[in-house]
Amino acid sequence: MRKHPRTKLALTERIVMKALVYHGPGKRAWEDKTKPTIKEASDAVVKIARTTICGTDLHIMKGDVPTVTDGRILGHEGVGIVDEVGAAVSTFKKGDRVLISCITSCAKCDACKKGMYSHCATGGWILGNTIDGTQAEYVRIPFADTSLYHVPKGADEDALAMLSDILPTGFECGVLSGAVKPGDIVAIVGAGPVGLAALLTAQLYSPAQVIMIDLDDNRLEVAKTLGATQCINSTDGKSADRVLALTDKKGVDVAIEAVGIPATFGVCQDIVAAGGHIANIGVHGKSVELKLEKLWDRNITITTRLVDTVTTPMLLKSVIARRLEPRKLITHEFVLDDLMKAYDTFGDAAKTKALKVIIRSA
Amino acid sequence: MRKHPRTKLALTERIVMKALVYHGPGKRAWEDKTKPTIKEASDAVVKIARTTICGTDLHIMKGDVPTVTDGRILGHEGVGIVDEVGAAVSTFKKGDRVLISCITSCAKCDACKKGMYSHCATGGWILGNTIDGTQAEYVRIPFADTSLYHVPKGADEDALAMLSDILPTGFECGVLSGAVKPGDIVAIVGAGPVGLAALLTAQLYSPAQVIMIDLDDNRLEVAKTLGATQCINSTDGKSADRVLALTDKKGVDVAIEAVGIPATFGVCQDIVAAGGHIANIGVHGKSVELKLEKLWDRNITITTRLVDTVTTPMLLKSVIARRLEPRKLITHEFVLDDLMKAYDTFGDAAKTKALKVIIRSA
Amino acid sequence: MRKHPRTKLALTERIVMKALVYHGPGKRAWEDKTKPTIKEASDAVVKIARTTICGTDLHIMKGDVPTVTDGRILGHEGVGIVDEVGAAVSTFKKGDRVLISCITSCAKCDACKKGMYSHCATGGWILGNTIDGTQAEYVRIPFADTSLYHVPKGADEDALAMLSDILPTGFECGVLSGAVKPGDIVAIVGAGPVGLAALLTAQLYSPAQVIMIDLDDNRLEVAKTLGATQCINSTDGKSADRVLALTDKKGVDVAIEAVGIPATFGVCQDIVAAGGHIANIGVHGKSVELKLEKLWDRNITITTRLVDTVTTPMLLKSVIARRLEPRKLITHEFVLDDLMKAYDTFGDAAKTKALKVIIRSA
Amino acid sequence: MRKHPRTKLALTERIVMKALVYHGPGKRAWEDKTKPTIKEASDAVVKIARTTICGTDLHIMKGDVPTVTDGRILGHEGVGIVDEVGAAVSTFKKGDRVLISCITSCAKCDACKKGMYSHCATGGWILGNTIDGTQAEYVRIPFADTSLYHVPKGADEDALAMLSDILPTGFECGVLSGAVKPGDIVAIVGAGPVGLAALLTAQLYSPAQVIMIDLDDNRLEVAKTLGATQCINSTDGKSADRVLALTDKKGVDVAIEAVGIPATFGVCQDIVAAGGHIANIGVHGKSVELKLEKLWDRNITITTRLVDTVTTPMLLKSVIARRLEPRKLITHEFVLDDLMKAYDTFGDAAKTKALKVIIRSA
Repeated sequence: MRKHPRTKLALTERIVMKALVYHGPGKRAWEDKTKPTIKEASDAVVKIARTTICGTDLHIMKGDVPTVTDGRILGHEGVGIVDEVGAAVSTFKKGDRVLISCITSCAKCDACKKGMYSHCATGGWILGNTIDGTQAEYVRIPFADTSLYHVPKGADEDALAMLSDILPTGFECGVLSGAVKPGDIVAIVGAGPVGLAALLTAQLYSPAQVIMIDLDDNRLEVAKTLGATQCINSTDGKSADRVLALTDKKGVDVAIEAVGIPATFGVCQDIVAAGGHIANIGVHGKSVELKLEKLWDRNITITTRLVDTVTTPMLLKSVIARRLEPRKLITHEFVLDDLMKAYDTFGDAAKTKALKVIIRSA
Repeated sequence: MRKHPRTKLALTERIVMKALVYHGPGKRAWEDKTKPTIKEASDAVVKIARTTICGTDLHIMKGDVPTVTDGRILGHEGVGIVDEVGAAVSTFKKGDRVLISCITSCAKCDACKKGMYSHCATGGWILGNTIDGTQAEYVRIPFADTSLYHVPKGADEDALAMLSDILPTGFECGVLSGAVKPGDIVAIVGAGPVGLAALLTAQLYSPAQVIMIDLDDNRLEVAKTLGATQCINSTDGKSADRVLALTDKKGVDVAIEAVGIPATFGVCQDIVAAGGHIANIGVHGKSVELKLEKLWDRNITITTRLVDTVTTPMLLKSVIARRLEPRKLITHEFVLDDLMKAYDTFGDAAKTKALKVIIRSA
Repeated sequence: MRKHPRTKLALTERIVMKALVYHGPGKRAWEDKTKPTIKEASDAVVKIARTTICGTDLHIMKGDVPTVTDGRILGHEGVGIVDEVGAAVSTFKKGDRVLISCITSCAKCDACKKGMYSHCATGGWILGNTIDGTQAEYVRIPFADTSLYHVPKGADEDALAMLSDILPTGFECGVLSGAVKPGDIVAIVGAGPVGLAALLTAQLYSPAQVIMIDLDDNRLEVAKTLGATQCINSTDGKSADRVLALTDKKGVDVAIEAVGIPATFGVCQDIVAAGGHIANIGVHGKSVELKLEKLWDRNITITTRLVDTVTTPMLLKSVIARRLEPRKLITHEFVLDDLMKAYDTFGDAAKTKALKVIIRSA
Repeated sequence: MRKHPRTKLALTERIVMKALVYHGPGKRAWEDKTKPTIKEASDAVVKIARTTICGTDLHIMKGDVPTVTDGRILGHEGVGIVDEVGAAVSTFKKGDRVLISCITSCAKCDACKKGMYSHCATGGWILGNTIDGTQAEYVRIPFADTSLYHVPKGADEDALAMLSDILPTGFECGVLSGAVKPGDIVAIVGAGPVGLAALLTAQLYSPAQVIMIDLDDNRLEVAKTLGATQCINSTDGKSADRVLALTDKKGVDVAIEAVGIPATFGVCQDIVAAGGHIANIGVHGKSVELKLEKLWDRNITITTRLVDTVTTPMLLKSVIARRLEPRKLITHEFVLDDLMKAYDTFGDAAKTKALKVIIRSA
């Protein structure tokens, strides 16, 4: 519908780079691709310094995300160095170190003006989805002015790579939408990377308690070190009962769903107190049963959200001020050339105990 | 757990009054009952001047509300004159004209302090439910100081009777929880009395459009006179398509559910725009399917609520200032002695076209 | 600090247009100027169809605004037709009818990302101030994508010209910052065009009363037709007493200052109720006395604001939906060639009773 | 206007207790007074276990608070044991350990219903002001149900005594009214007990920086240990310049005034960033100059507030959860019989370095 002015490109030689490429369900390769170039005046090309792998990338690899087609370079997270900017880019220049947002924002459409960048008419989640992504030596970033952030001097870039997606996702979809506030009792169902990101960022609002619920004792151990006040292994299917026991049968002020299946959404319904919030972060593949016959008069709020990354500037400040330590989520380190191995490790988290892997350019 | 001081009552003669009494599913009678007296120091006894019948009363008559037992006087709405007050009542005195709230608030418990009177530890919706109600010559009102409101001089008491329940219900559960704001497109599914109350009160926030959806052309006609900008008869099951057609396929900012069945909640899910709100008012008897596989990334908010009547003071001001005209909901008038007829008329709304009936003491 | 890519312009012939030009205090002329051209890729050039004159333009003419220098084309309001767009403009094309915002927003800086366009690092109020404005046949609009708005088909463009500045100013600085809500008592001190714009837009939130205060009976008469519930002529210096008399000595929930002098700000302090808001719209030339010895424990909020025009999309919808009728502010009509006369009329409002003048291209 | 039912009291013997009594400016005594009894059905009498002295008590001693008359028992802070309750009290019983709020709330008036207990029609700040206070062996607490809080089992009662006034004052008037949020830069002008309470409670919202400004190096040292990120001694009158230097000339998001004189309020005006907040806590004795000629277009918010103590339940939870450690404000300990000495110590803070003193019954 909308057209971008196409800058006239001289017929340039094709430059080759390495990238992690999706070739249909179960098939990926670390292979040669053409280095991206500026296509629109608002583009930047960024040389990747850090990237990471998201649970969503594993979903893609399973074939669950039909918008991702054969030949796509994956990845929507990373930190890098600006290599080239289009004529309309005014905030960044070659050589700037930048944080890449998983969400591309044009800043012009109705959704962007409302701060709902996730629903940008021409952006949103496109990196490593409908356009090539960050698991490569270089990536083209559309609307660079409003989709990149300056890396403050001396910042820990491993930590910042967590701000591309996982921290704002846990924070916006879980903590903000759940309206966590001082004194609250919060329960987070799911102690995977996103649930742990919600745990870390919930503490920005100083809840009285944060109860973590998961099937995996190792992840619950980690949760404890990251600030959980109580941990519940839900293997026996009685996590809701235990939450109610912990809360004088009142339930929790905020229940954050960080798994994406009917059972865990059901737990949230069972434990939310009157007047409370259920904040859904999980990516759901099927419908869930909403028990309105029990909830219609309970004054509860249920929210869904795709991360907008509107809070990235705030999260950056919080990391720099050491109010937030996302580095704690990183369990494994790789170099870019070992991205295939990084996928193996991240994909077998039950065994490797991987949470987030950091992949560095050198 | 909590004890109220019981004022010592002299052994008084039993005084008889008339009341509408529930005697199990399908059975009601206009019969003699003992006139209520002060039981707690914070009680008032109010002589009824106006009362009305609620859709909930019809549910009770069907046997759908198990907390209501044989012998209960029904009714939770009304305007009256204070007949007697307990020793701890300081805001009202004998002779004061008062609006009765359908929700009783102790003002002391955690829920009340948060403004969530509906979940008052000892109050909430008890009138005509767990204690005797307003469809009688007299009613005892617990926590009178915080459950009654002074009727401003010269006010239209028929109109005020609509503030006991239906106006705050439409406003709080629909308009406020749905966060209606100027410029919004709002759809209200269900043009019964509560849906129409939501329509009237939504206009306090000047939405650009209010689309009413119902199966009944008569009610849609009424909706038009009350400010609906578009009306859709949903008999053909295509109301969602038509709403999308009216909104450039974007959907509505706020979808208010005012029926209480899975189908209408489903329509709300189909028509809510990204970033929008679904505000449930309907009383649901069974679970609904929540299409999280479609909604998880749509940034929507779903709310449930039992009316708190925290906005009653504001609604009173708005009626006095003629910003709101709830009298328009009244279609039929009765005297108290004809309460049985009033039930017949209200219960057969399809034929009688009744919305709200007003029942006056004389 | 930031550089825009300069599109290479062929050496074009100078095209001449007519414009209202400031030549120092008290001196203005309707004279020939060079028609503007695209300077930055994000610019548009707009042919003016409607413009108007603002109280601020009169301040400029008095020499009160030092940023405005000799030779500047005045004007920051208008509606027009896109004549040409820069290479980076994607939302508008030649021939589009557009509303021009008085505030230019780059959409990229920290302030713009927060919705505080008034403090845009490179924009803000620049039209008719630090760059040439809209009182001309053509105007160059920087950051066109985020500083122009599409005119809906069939819209009343005279009315829309009120949305460039005065309506969002009254609404954002007065009504929103003052947090007007249903049931409130609002007082607006100053019934000039901005005060009346606050009066019109306050009604989007259905306050119970809006009391207008001014020295001019004619303006108060107009206020009455625009929705004021009470009017007070403050010539006798007793307006505060009268407001207190009208409000049971409690004062008002919201006091909107729409003049810009110490006396009127003083009235606001005298009439604000405990828990209330003072929303300053007036442009102040000197300090005022803040009576903290009286106000420190009164739980009041005082706000200042330069209009951000973030609410322009909502106001547009409200005008189209006929919830707002800004046309009512227009008292006089002129053609563009009579702009000098329009200034005379607008500048002598006491005699001409001018509120807003509309100036049309033909 | 309102009448409380007076419980019939048997003619009892006068029981004597010790109390700190005000006898006009500069005169106080630790002397015999009659032990208070229940006067209204909603009263409780509380035996004091902990009390403390407030800066306001020193103001009273100077004769600055004309509502306090000769013979008044001072004190509005404390923790104690319920000794007796009136007939209408339902939340507390003899023997309950309770936190006393400095603000008395009837829970029935318009102000209380809005959560603005400070402006309660019959309560507000009355303890140690218009009725006898807590610096005594016993105190009568009106509206006990809504003016006392249960002490959780095992709680540190010294710490809780800080929740009677100083913590909610710093939090509500400074942090909440100033809208402190994660990532913010906050400056607090005044590192006395209230400023330090604002510092402690600001951290519930994880600001990136909290800059403390004071004349006293000792207090700034303390501030550092309580979480201040930067400290500025303002003796040279250049604190505003230094704050601007620390913030890239942008100023702070929130400036909290915790002194109460024109100079410090002036500093707040000089350092607040565009879009920022000035939250006044200080008790002001004279007017201040509000520089509207500089601030009218800066989008700032200025708030005043008398503490409402609506956040006491949340602060209690935060202390129990160890998110807040108000005990850190206590510098000196006394027994009740040494209250006169405690005043000497607290009154000579420059020398004694006293912040808060705790006074225990035994």
